[in-house]
Amino acid sequence: MVESQQTMGEKIAVVGGGSWATALIKILTENQVKVKWWMRDAEAVAHIRKYRHNPHYLSSVELHPSKVKPYLQLREALKGVDWVILAVPSAFIEDALKDADPSWFEGKKVISGVKGIISSTSQLVTDWFAEKFAVDPQHLGAIAGPCHAEEIALEKYSYITIASASEDTAKEFAKLLTCRFVKTSYLTDLHGVEYAAVMKNIVAMSCGIVHGVGAGDNFQAVMVSNAIIEIQRFLDTVVPLERKVNVSAYLGDLLVTSYSQFSRNRTFGNMIGRGYSVQAAKVELKMIAEGYYATNCIQRINEQYKVDLPIVKFAYDVLYNKEKPLKAFEELKGKFV
Amino acid sequence: MVESQQTMGEKIAVVGGGSWATALIKILTENQVKVKWWMRDAEAVAHIRKYRHNPHYLSSVELHPSKVKPYLQLREALKGVDWVILAVPSAFIEDALKDADPSWFEGKKVISGVKGIISSTSQLVTDWFAEKFAVDPQHLGAIAGPCHAEEIALEKYSYITIASASEDTAKEFAKLLTCRFVKTSYLTDLHGVEYAAVMKNIVAMSCGIVHGVGAGDNFQAVMVSNAIIEIQRFLDTVVPLERKVNVSAYLGDLLVTSYSQFSRNRTFGNMIGRGYSVQAAKVELKMIAEGYYATNCIQRINEQYKVDLPIVKFAYDVLYNKEKPLKAFEELKGKFV
Repeated sequence: MVESQQTMGEKIAVVGGGSWATALIKILTENQVKVKWWMRDAEAVAHIRKYRHNPHYLSSVELHPSKVKPYLQLREALKGVDWVILAVPSAFIEDALKDADPSWFEGKKVISGVKGIISSTSQLVTDWFAEKFAVDPQHLGAIAGPCHAEEIALEKYSYITIASASEDTAKEFAKLLTCRFVKTSYLTDLHGVEYAAVMKNIVAMSCGIVHGVGAGDNFQAVMVSNAIIEIQRFLDTVVPLERKVNVSAYLGDLLVTSYSQFSRNRTFGNMIGRGYSVQAAKVELKMIAEGYYATNCIQRINEQYKVDLPIVKFAYDVLYNKEKPLKAFEELKGKFV
Repeated sequence: MVESQQTMGEKIAVVGGGSWATALIKILTENQVKVKWWMRDAEAVAHIRKYRHNPHYLSSVELHPSKVKPYLQLREALKGVDWVILAVPSAFIEDALKDADPSWFEGKKVISGVKGIISSTSQLVTDWFAEKFAVDPQHLGAIAGPCHAEEIALEKYSYITIASASEDTAKEFAKLLTCRFVKTSYLTDLHGVEYAAVMKNIVAMSCGIVHGVGAGDNFQAVMVSNAIIEIQRFLDTVVPLERKVNVSAYLGDLLVTSYSQFSRNRTFGNMIGRGYSVQAAKVELKMIAEGYYATNCIQRINEQYKVDLPIVKFAYDVLYNKEKPLKAFEELKGKFV
């Protein structure tokens, strides 16, 4: 397939064809921002061109050809844009960009909408990206929730926070995502926001595990309130900076994930708690939850910092040390405040 | 009915016959603590004596006559005990104690398990009690969650915090409530814990209201994370003290209430959000949620402090100023961080 080379003044490319990418495109087009959209799935591209909807994700969202142009060649999608949004799950990001060349990103600002960590290197996505594609750290940022893509499709009022070491980058990008149903704010705590987003998946998965062994809502409330304390303890050591962890980018994101009944992390954890092996849960759910990889990464990173992280330790013991969930719960349950 | 005057060394009286009272009695008897139990309902007392179960609340809990003795005369129930637990909803506590004499409480320590505020005087329960019954403030305390009574009945592992201005009182009482399925801790921030418990009901009700006008989980996460910021702002002004609001007694209690799908506050709020009048919601639900009264009380108290309380203001505008829920939501939704 030959990509159309005509442009209509697009300044943003979105990398990834899933529900989060589709939700971000809905926000951008609501703002009259024109988007070049790269995805792998040739059938999905053909479908979008023909029917103006993503066949697989948030298919209610209209993708008008005057605003959104799908691409199968990443290099073509990136040409001429000022901004690139990465919106591929962390498990696939290395593969998605394996043929990309640093020159493709030259002079562009790159914002990570990736929810997770690079598991092969235990790196935050922006760190990995800066290293691999030689992008100026001032030109990097990340998008933080609390934000289920499904609710964006329904135009439910949501908050999004943009984090970047550069206040200008964060502010500029936040403007692009502000619309009728999205309020944005910005923070300069890029790494803090990224780590918090990774750790919330471990917490949501652990909520599933303890539910699986019989704990109730009383205990979940204790665990989630202690989780934000645990996240703050980790961040204050690993990314020392003044921050208020109770704002929506940290605590809000933790809450929406931990209390989502449909969360894949929770469902995966619940199966583990009920006695499924990781392999069996993977077969049953056709995926492994983000929190599984995140647990190993945070545990590895923390080897050097030795912050007290009872929830991460709990998840690690169950998933990687093959400790029985009920035994691990017995060890965990009295540790909170 | 003549009350039995024989004692079996009971050191605690529990005042109130509802589910929270029943749950507390389950914990105490698990600890081999003998309990004198006062309630109004003569039929319930007869039922408990005959069948060893509360006919109306948590009826799975066994109430063995060697451990629990029900009373219809408050004065008799209070005789000889060292501790009194108040476990009546705040709307009924004044009436329940209207014939009681200060001498009945002399020398006793009184712990409030009342969830709410005295609406006729906008007083915290322990303040009202100290004033009315001349009990030494050092002998007063309160029980804080996060703790659904139903989960105690099921022996789901739970955390309870005891707050008292006197560390000794808090510690001593905490020991009585520590058991196989309950971990206790204590704090000296009695008024802070009481205010936080009152405000969480306003938040849970407001979660219902915004849900009723169409907000989703993304927005609820923003609101609940901002709620703990709002509660902290109020407490730091009204009860200035060093405190960590992310521990289970404050944030945990807020979470278990705000995220309970069965919460009466949330259900009531949801009906208001959908357009029911307070009167119509009351008729339908056969009650008015605690959060309704709490909103008026906190608003009154805050007239003197003028703390910025956007959620309390939102609830007050809707419930007392007859503002349309959708309009109030439009004013509220952009105020958070």
